[in-house]
Amino acid sequence: MKEYKVIFHIDEMTKWKLLLTNVTNLLNGMHEEQLSVSVLANAEAVRYYDAARNFAAGAKVMESLSQKDVRFLACNNALRAHGITKDAIYQFVEIVPAGVVELVKRQSEGYAYIKP
Amino acid sequence: MKEYKVIFHIDEMTKWKLLLTNVTNLLNGMHEEQLSVSVLANAEAVRYYDAARNFAAGAKVMESLSQKDVRFLACNNALRAHGITKDAIYQFVEIVPAGVVELVKRQSEGYAYIKP
Amino acid sequence: MKEYKVIFHIDEMTKWKLLLTNVTNLLNGMHEEQLSVSVLANAEAVRYYDAARNFAAGAKVMESLSQKDVRFLACNNALRAHGITKDAIYQFVEIVPAGVVELVKRQSEGYAYIKP
Repeated sequence: MKEYKVIFHIDEMTKWKLLLTNVTNLLNGMHEEQLSVSVLANAEAVRYYDAARNFAAGAKVMESLSQKDVRFLACNNALRAHGITKDAIYQFVEIVPAGVVELVKRQSEGYAYIKP
Repeated sequence: MKEYKVIFHIDEMTKWKLLLTNVTNLLNGMHEEQLSVSVLANAEAVRYYDAARNFAAGAKVMESLSQKDVRFLACNNALRAHGITKDAIYQFVEIVPAGVVELVKRQSEGYAYIKP
Repeated sequence: MKEYKVIFHIDEMTKWKLLLTNVTNLLNGMHEEQLSVSVLANAEAVRYYDAARNFAAGAKVMESLSQKDVRFLACNNALRAHGITKDAIYQFVEIVPAGVVELVKRQSEGYAYIKP
């Protein structure tokens, strides 16, 4: 069976609601397929991961998606630039050294790229 | 002869003018090549397809592009979310069950992705 | 050794600062890898290349990146639409006939696509 792989890219705070709807629709639309989904946040979008400041209206949606194996990734350059420590972010978020490196390497591995 | 395949993604109403210019430039620039072009609209961007409400300043451009085999696709999740019925949209628009699924499957088939 | 190839796409003036940070982070994060980076500007974003009008707060960053083999490309359709002549743009900028054609051809050659 073919495995589909997708990386969503988000770098604006205002796009999170749309992105989480996109991911939800994708899981619903491909529940009979092999599917691997990652969400890569860089630039200001990493602020949404800041549990301490509680910006994320969709925190429960994110957590629920993470329980369905959607991986939420944070660019460490962006976390540092916004003064967000590892302890402050949601536990299901994984930190990657550089978001753009992740975007390049994943696409070279056959991931589709979607920027909501 | 190599066949080039492209899917344009649009999810904002304000990007339609730019997108239609992009598609026109692409056809002009590759008229000697084998080229397959689709435009996938999801989120609020599907409102542009609503012939009844006549939002589309570029309706004639779209129709002309569709006659040159550019496929205009609408996400059905988005149509429902915006209360747009199948009867209301331009006849050349095709409905797909979920826009993001289309974006993933097309890229896995070798389509390039462009988000204006 | 695997060679990674990336094309960044920019069509809005407001995204240049973010884009140049992205490219800088990418070079820093992949300095041990074989990496080829292009930046394709179309639509209004080509105005940033206009040395005569001096819009580019990041002109020195661009020049420094170009010395590290990052290629800055300008869509000729967009240059014409904005009345920018070949003489007016920075010397390190290369002109391509149509930006979208470049985006399609590069992706068909295995380039990753990133839209900041």
